[in-house]
Amino acid sequence: MDSYPFGSGRPDPASFPNRELGEAAMRILPEMGNQLALYPGSLGYLPLRQLMADRLLKREGMAPAVDEIALTNGSMQSVTLMAQMFIEKPGDGVIMEEFSYSGTIGAYKKEGAELVGIPVDEHGMRMDALADELKVRADKGNLPKFIYVLATFQNPTGAVMPLARRKELLQIAAQYELPVVEDHCYADTVYEDDYYVPSFYTLPSEVPVVHIESLSKILGPGVRLGCFFTKQPLLGQILSLRRDGGTSTLAAAVVAEYFREHMWTHVDKINNIVKEKRDLMFKLLGQHPDAFEWFSRPKGGLFIWVKLPEATDRVKCEQFAEDRGVDYATGKAFHVHNADVAYLRLAFGYASLKEIQEGIPKLAECVMQAQT
Amino acid sequence: MDSYPFGSGRPDPASFPNRELGEAAMRILPEMGNQLALYPGSLGYLPLRQLMADRLLKREGMAPAVDEIALTNGSMQSVTLMAQMFIEKPGDGVIMEEFSYSGTIGAYKKEGAELVGIPVDEHGMRMDALADELKVRADKGNLPKFIYVLATFQNPTGAVMPLARRKELLQIAAQYELPVVEDHCYADTVYEDDYYVPSFYTLPSEVPVVHIESLSKILGPGVRLGCFFTKQPLLGQILSLRRDGGTSTLAAAVVAEYFREHMWTHVDKINNIVKEKRDLMFKLLGQHPDAFEWFSRPKGGLFIWVKLPEATDRVKCEQFAEDRGVDYATGKAFHVHNADVAYLRLAFGYASLKEIQEGIPKLAECVMQAQT
Repeated sequence: MDSYPFGSGRPDPASFPNRELGEAAMRILPEMGNQLALYPGSLGYLPLRQLMADRLLKREGMAPAVDEIALTNGSMQSVTLMAQMFIEKPGDGVIMEEFSYSGTIGAYKKEGAELVGIPVDEHGMRMDALADELKVRADKGNLPKFIYVLATFQNPTGAVMPLARRKELLQIAAQYELPVVEDHCYADTVYEDDYYVPSFYTLPSEVPVVHIESLSKILGPGVRLGCFFTKQPLLGQILSLRRDGGTSTLAAAVVAEYFREHMWTHVDKINNIVKEKRDLMFKLLGQHPDAFEWFSRPKGGLFIWVKLPEATDRVKCEQFAEDRGVDYATGKAFHVHNADVAYLRLAFGYASLKEIQEGIPKLAECVMQAQT
Repeated sequence: MDSYPFGSGRPDPASFPNRELGEAAMRILPEMGNQLALYPGSLGYLPLRQLMADRLLKREGMAPAVDEIALTNGSMQSVTLMAQMFIEKPGDGVIMEEFSYSGTIGAYKKEGAELVGIPVDEHGMRMDALADELKVRADKGNLPKFIYVLATFQNPTGAVMPLARRKELLQIAAQYELPVVEDHCYADTVYEDDYYVPSFYTLPSEVPVVHIESLSKILGPGVRLGCFFTKQPLLGQILSLRRDGGTSTLAAAVVAEYFREHMWTHVDKINNIVKEKRDLMFKLLGQHPDAFEWFSRPKGGLFIWVKLPEATDRVKCEQFAEDRGVDYATGKAFHVHNADVAYLRLAFGYASLKEIQEGIPKLAECVMQAQT
């Protein structure tokens, strides 16, 4: 059976630089001396941290020191470390967008956190709702422990939070002394020139900001490389929770050697490829307004957030889609309390143009067939 | 200043196959198709799991199915996952050797476990002491949650638990329904032919056995690769606690391609090199009986456990050693309750013959100078 992989946030597979990574390995590994016989340490392989800093400097105009950057096993390890850092006992709260990354939701629930979902709009987390929620909780003496925010190409909605709102968030965080964790894993998957808004870490803040980056979206999740950075003393406190012996120097060295020359050419190349897929998905979704009542038009990231008719039987729709080989992510997977909303999320990075061309009309059929 | 690195358990750096890993990468990475653009999954890259199974079959005569093996970020991630699995609330107990791996001690303390140390002798954990401890705890309704045991080339003592004692341990575990976690990370660092004792997982058991392996000791900790295996349903329960997105397919593929042809030749080669270092350390330690009252003579692993005169001021000794560039691990780092015992642990894998030749007499000086 044909399959239409719109479920998981993965990059374009055909452009993955397998051969170039092999060549990079052939160049760098013989030069590694005794480094692979040593533990990577809690920060990890220096040249990749330097490359992360260079990337941030170019993109944000401001880079952390390399000894403030810690490599991790993808961004997911960073996300989990934050819960281990800030959630001290079951029921401690974490502020998140009401709709957020399903992996984060799962990880934070497993740490025993209370997920406090703040309503979102087309500009991300709503500051009026955040202020109200925190006021109520402060009055009850029940403040959450930190704010987790996906401000750029929010997953699943694709929203980019404007600068004024980011500043407001930092003010509110300061008022209640809440650290801010900024998950920035889609920062380089960009398809328009006019999207850029400064990251939280570049803005004045009275509270600690932890910034999380990933290489899964611009290279591939199979390399398992990401990083986070923040200032001392928080950095040391987070690193003391690490119990994995560090991030693979082998993986880091091969990727750093490849990216040393090819970072931005590779990013440009895959963004051009993925933009074409996104645009095709926009076009096809627009051709089925009965099935897809509304959909986001993200300027970056890997996902489109799609509103279905309220009368859609979501369980049937999933079954019909499975029968046709169409894989997507259900809306409820992204709701902090698993509410069964009439949305679904489509990933456009991994599937081929042909799969998109054929799969979206099939998905429209499933939705229409599932009307009650 | 010269330095004498006897502190950390690392392999011989000069024999690390940097170039051969580069060549392996050049062969395998161009053939990877879309695998690096996918998440590795909770089990990880299949060819390396197959290789782990082949290695176990050759060594133990019995291998798990490949879908029972999960790759991890070194053995340290496995060790930590076990605490996350079995320690449900602060104060839940774990049975360990009274002296055990300092990394495990740290990780389990951080999970909030009560570390229940069982006295050891030259054959590892003492079964009379284990039976007594469990009886007392059973009477109080305060049984621990699992047994963590380093039965082969115990760290730090180097002991190998004989078969009869292993069978007894499994009987006692069955009596109290305690799962057994077998940390087997030194299994291939072997310098004598007559050491072999079957692993717990090959023996009949009424309780689940989890077996942990590492590639850090025969290749290098910088690759961050290890694995664990056990039967369902426990395997699935442990994997559901994993929140790192899986183990790097990039690192796993390069190492699997290298080991496909060179696994046992590489192991033989490094064991020959490290055996010479061990034997030199034995000889030099024996030349200073006043400083080194007793020391273990392990047939494998990477460590010698050394008894100092009781009157040694351990703090001063460390200071004198630091002044001379001699790095070792203090005995108390391996005691479950950090008791300041008159022992130290010497690692013999990483230092060169020259560093051993010069460093051990310097260490003897430090010990003698620190007599009170």
